[in-house]
Amino acid sequence: MKVEIISIGDELLIGQTVNTNASWLGETLSKAGSEIIKTVAISDKKEEIISSLNHVYEETECVIITGGLGPTKDDITKYTLAEYFGSTLENDPHTLSKIEAFFSQRKRPMLASNYKQAELPTDCTILENDYGTAAGMWFEKNNKIYISLPGVPYEMQGIMTEQAIPKLKERFKLKSMYYKTALTQGIGESFLAEKIAKWENQVYKEGFSLAYLPSSGIVKLRITSAHGSDDTEKINDLFKALEMQIPNHFFGYDRDTLPQIIGQQLIDKKLTIGTVESCTAGMLASQISSIPGASAYYEGALLTYSYNIKSSLANVPESLIIEHGAVSEPVAKAMAENGRKILDVDICISTTGIAGPGGGTETKPVGMVWIAIATKSGTTSKMMQFSKHRERNIKMTVLTALNLLRLALNN
Amino acid sequence: MKVEIISIGDELLIGQTVNTNASWLGETLSKAGSEIIKTVAISDKKEEIISSLNHVYEETECVIITGGLGPTKDDITKYTLAEYFGSTLENDPHTLSKIEAFFSQRKRPMLASNYKQAELPTDCTILENDYGTAAGMWFEKNNKIYISLPGVPYEMQGIMTEQAIPKLKERFKLKSMYYKTALTQGIGESFLAEKIAKWENQVYKEGFSLAYLPSSGIVKLRITSAHGSDDTEKINDLFKALEMQIPNHFFGYDRDTLPQIIGQQLIDKKLTIGTVESCTAGMLASQISSIPGASAYYEGALLTYSYNIKSSLANVPESLIIEHGAVSEPVAKAMAENGRKILDVDICISTTGIAGPGGGTETKPVGMVWIAIATKSGTTSKMMQFSKHRERNIKMTVLTALNLLRLALNN
Repeated sequence: MKVEIISIGDELLIGQTVNTNASWLGETLSKAGSEIIKTVAISDKKEEIISSLNHVYEETECVIITGGLGPTKDDITKYTLAEYFGSTLENDPHTLSKIEAFFSQRKRPMLASNYKQAELPTDCTILENDYGTAAGMWFEKNNKIYISLPGVPYEMQGIMTEQAIPKLKERFKLKSMYYKTALTQGIGESFLAEKIAKWENQVYKEGFSLAYLPSSGIVKLRITSAHGSDDTEKINDLFKALEMQIPNHFFGYDRDTLPQIIGQQLIDKKLTIGTVESCTAGMLASQISSIPGASAYYEGALLTYSYNIKSSLANVPESLIIEHGAVSEPVAKAMAENGRKILDVDICISTTGIAGPGGGTETKPVGMVWIAIATKSGTTSKMMQFSKHRERNIKMTVLTALNLLRLALNN
Repeated sequence: MKVEIISIGDELLIGQTVNTNASWLGETLSKAGSEIIKTVAISDKKEEIISSLNHVYEETECVIITGGLGPTKDDITKYTLAEYFGSTLENDPHTLSKIEAFFSQRKRPMLASNYKQAELPTDCTILENDYGTAAGMWFEKNNKIYISLPGVPYEMQGIMTEQAIPKLKERFKLKSMYYKTALTQGIGESFLAEKIAKWENQVYKEGFSLAYLPSSGIVKLRITSAHGSDDTEKINDLFKALEMQIPNHFFGYDRDTLPQIIGQQLIDKKLTIGTVESCTAGMLASQISSIPGASAYYEGALLTYSYNIKSSLANVPESLIIEHGAVSEPVAKAMAENGRKILDVDICISTTGIAGPGGGTETKPVGMVWIAIATKSGTTSKMMQFSKHRERNIKMTVLTALNLLRLALNN
């Protein structure tokens, strides 16, 4: 299935919004076995929308159009498409009842503009929106399918995943490419490449392709097979070999996340956890508790940002802070050990560091972080030296702490 | 000057790379006074490049092409453009000497493929690349300018800023557009539109355009003037009127953020702050403390996820939880008031809610959240009913709490 994507919105052209919808659609549809041949972004003007529809390639089988379905005056996609496909608008009772439910659930009154959102072209198939008020639309014309979706990412993704893709798969009998992606933490792309050079050759020898996908703190390794899921077993074997080679860094596959993996380990081992955070200031806790059902193992945290609170809440002796500094191994260990008692948990993890941009010294530069983990069998700690960038330092500390936690739970 | 952007690269189509080049170019060129009428992403195939060049609009005056200029086999843009414009390739001695200097400075050997990068079309103006080895090219044909640039963002940005834009400004006598964007929280797009309908008409009457840019919890309102910064004052006046009309929702302009604005208010008023969080589990704290210098006002937090810790750490009487439930006004108020004392801060904000997907009941459905703010002059609280989606509920709670905090600090 050959696909074109048309994204509508001035905000995309003037660079106010990065077009993440196009990349999400690109990834999702390629994985589903289709080929994206072009993506276009245009302004929310009727003549531009019509011109872009007129310029769709002959060979294109499916056109995905995002944006311009909201309730305000600048949202003209629905009206333009209705005109383009020679269709009239009529109130759709089912859509109306969904919109009414949407507002009543939020205890908010419905406006005239929201009622108008239930007016839909008569000759399209309506794709229900369970996440907002703008329904998706599926038109068929000239041997092509045209799917119009709202531009709000999670609404677009919801309609696409739950309704449009299953319908497309049915229609085109798509044969998916097969991908599997291994996730690593705490090792840079080039070091990883050097470490696994032999393994990489093996991947190529078996006829697969390999991509390194680096982001802050995490490098993903994706193996692709052009033969679909027939190669699943071979690829699994390759990844098993990789797991053995880099156990400290490998943590999961595909959409796995460290909080999820840690959560499962905690549930399996019936352990509870808490955090005592300084430089990460709650981001570690919010990651651990981001998983549905986290209340089974996550108890709570002390965020001890100031010196005073390190002493008054986490019982870190003032003398220890004066002697070693707040960013030091003894303070990190005291935070974790005391937190374990105060929060009454099996495992407590602490972070203390200089996030920056200010606060660094010669011996303790910006980006220095101590992490400690207290368990019933003792306390371990680790020092990391990150960069000069506050946001990145906090994020890297959280990822490193989660990976250390994973390793501690494995042992 | 009307501009089209053509981005070349399979990685854009399959969503492996988000097209930030298009958004950077969009922002930079609109600010420089040109109008982006379309952006296209295509694969690195010769026939696709030629087809996209053939489909450039009649009225387009400048086409910016990024990507496909590297030294590897899949980089075919230069050869395709030379063919398209009927030009031959010749070694350019100045470019060659720059490439040689690039490698000798990095003490790396030059490969045959790097020598080939100095071979450039004879009838283009070369745009020097001070950041890498792929030169930019400036062609003129059919009354249009075609600029080809490497896809590596900082190389593309360097050539564009230092060479292409000055040349374009000279040619087209560009007059910059002027934008200003107001930021609102806590009101949906359609309610906002209804509330400010008269104001919106006034914006149009003055000859400006207005765009609503909604995202989770925040709606941005952008006014654009085609006459450049001459209209700054008029637009400021319009926005002042808007501020007066929606004081509970308007919180800033352009790149302002709620944590930043709150941080500045706290510094100005010499106040300290802490949080007691249940459903947001640290995300509120991490937002407040995300600003450099937050240690001037941010003291710390209690994350009281479990009932036990609500009682043991935040001193919420167990009887209060049993009587009213953990998600209730009395518990939210007790959390904020007790937290204010325990953390020894001027202001304490609490959150307690049912993030979901589990844990909802008929009277307390998923998405119900209580927020309380305790100050020396008393405690206020507010109930919100959000959606069924855990991640979104947490994010919306954080945004709402930050906006309530902003309002409390204003009074």
